[in-house]
Amino acid sequence: MLEKVTTGTEVQLGRDHVIREMCDAIQSLTTKHRSAGDLAGIGIGVPGFIDMDTGTIMRSPNLQDWAHFPVRQEIERRLSTKVVLENDANAAAMGEKWLGAGRNTDHMAMYTLGTGVGGGIVINGRLWHGMNGMANELGHFNVESEGHPCGCGSRGCLEQYASATAIVRMAHEAIASGNAPDLADSARGNVEFTSRGIYQLAIQGHASAKKIYEQVGRALAIGVGSMINALNLPMYVIGGGVSSAWDAFAPTMFQELKTRSFIYSVTAPDRVEKGEKHTVVTIALMGSDAGLYGAARLPMLPPAAQTEAIRSSTPS
Amino acid sequence: MLEKVTTGTEVQLGRDHVIREMCDAIQSLTTKHRSAGDLAGIGIGVPGFIDMDTGTIMRSPNLQDWAHFPVRQEIERRLSTKVVLENDANAAAMGEKWLGAGRNTDHMAMYTLGTGVGGGIVINGRLWHGMNGMANELGHFNVESEGHPCGCGSRGCLEQYASATAIVRMAHEAIASGNAPDLADSARGNVEFTSRGIYQLAIQGHASAKKIYEQVGRALAIGVGSMINALNLPMYVIGGGVSSAWDAFAPTMFQELKTRSFIYSVTAPDRVEKGEKHTVVTIALMGSDAGLYGAARLPMLPPAAQTEAIRSSTPS
Repeated sequence: MLEKVTTGTEVQLGRDHVIREMCDAIQSLTTKHRSAGDLAGIGIGVPGFIDMDTGTIMRSPNLQDWAHFPVRQEIERRLSTKVVLENDANAAAMGEKWLGAGRNTDHMAMYTLGTGVGGGIVINGRLWHGMNGMANELGHFNVESEGHPCGCGSRGCLEQYASATAIVRMAHEAIASGNAPDLADSARGNVEFTSRGIYQLAIQGHASAKKIYEQVGRALAIGVGSMINALNLPMYVIGGGVSSAWDAFAPTMFQELKTRSFIYSVTAPDRVEKGEKHTVVTIALMGSDAGLYGAARLPMLPPAAQTEAIRSSTPS
Repeated sequence: MLEKVTTGTEVQLGRDHVIREMCDAIQSLTTKHRSAGDLAGIGIGVPGFIDMDTGTIMRSPNLQDWAHFPVRQEIERRLSTKVVLENDANAAAMGEKWLGAGRNTDHMAMYTLGTGVGGGIVINGRLWHGMNGMANELGHFNVESEGHPCGCGSRGCLEQYASATAIVRMAHEAIASGNAPDLADSARGNVEFTSRGIYQLAIQGHASAKKIYEQVGRALAIGVGSMINALNLPMYVIGGGVSSAWDAFAPTMFQELKTRSFIYSVTAPDRVEKGEKHTVVTIALMGSDAGLYGAARLPMLPPAAQTEAIRSSTPS
């Protein structure tokens, strides 16, 4: 990485302002590093559903006035270079595939545990987009049939048990039940009562905080276990901010995976002979830069044949 | 189809007997229909996990003495022709893809609701095998986190709510609860108290039988809905014996799908403009012959590149 520029995205100032600021930053970067090599293009990770054909954001909860606006075309016009627009969780999966945990495999699923839970699936080295570019919503896998209501309209989605938001909610639920005096003490007057703070309590040995991260591990095992049974991929990567609490949720996750997925149970690294094909469930390596690297990778790849195939074969 | 021969597989007489009988039947068929065209090869659907590289049955609950025996090689030797061994649920998916519900798409998932629940995923026109040929266990998708114990070692798998076996079990559970006098009457002294019989009661309007098939529809919606959110495929096909009870479970399934999967809710056939890409969830068309046609199709296809790719890129 030659340089990293961070700007606050002032979404409230409108679409044009954000695009102008972004393009200005890109232009000054490319001018500055002109001697470093040719520019293959610009990759952009955006929260929301992307129409890969038109480079349009179809739906994005946080970028409402961007819907149906031809973002890619507009940025290509301003910068006179190839631009690839991609969903941010997909971009993170590509980053881990390129230079992170998945660098030696061509097939992996990535779970990004942040405010919500995002996902990305890489098959044959390329991001899987599905029929409408809506695939990889691994955070909306059902893990509790009548569980906590989810913003997507369903109940009991993985996102409701394994996101930073869910961890804080589960802590408040535990406090409300009266069975978590240690959490109650910590929450009282603490304006920054976060998933990270609850993780600190967990590793200090507080039972009710530990229990919350065990719930995270169990929910992940149900979601990842179903995916292992469905796709039998060689690798499942857990990333995003919450993944830094790995030692608080991973032991429960691995224990549950062996009962939740019989495919995992016979292909776990400790169950197969050394060198045999096995299922890897592991922590992401690229941290918050995964999406940055993944987006940068996209203009270097030839267009995926897969999206074409799906388009032409859609049943009527 | 030129001719269909059915023989009882006398597994208890041993592997050699079964292989000899099968090869004799194939030989007399190929001799008889010699004039119909060249023989592309033989496709065989087998319950259990297949190692596609070696043509070996790795595990099969019903064919225990077949494990690690080079079945494909032995049959190729006897018949002097190309033989493709495939999991029976995968073969059924290929049959539906070739000539059935999926004939106009290259991407679909199929659920076979029989004694158990099998699955098959077709991507880019080819069966997806995963890293070890163990993929597509869609019957072992979790739909009730602490639900009924499953033979696979987990609890609450789809198979425990949408198979013929599960339907009879749920009926017995309803009878035991004392809330299903109509089912109790029907079960009493009825040696053939089957999923089909319970379906008859459901379409005659018996509330407790209807409720059981509603549970089937709900479980399918949870499983299929998670798959829609994960892969955004254009088609999901429901087949197997239980699918003939479609009108008893499909209304609940479609109703639940709209809340369980927000991708389905925005891409359902009644939610998109005519001609736009939409998600199809539909009944299989090939009945019990799906596996027969699918197996027959396999020797006609070139070897899938995908399995090669997975093998060479398995992370260490």
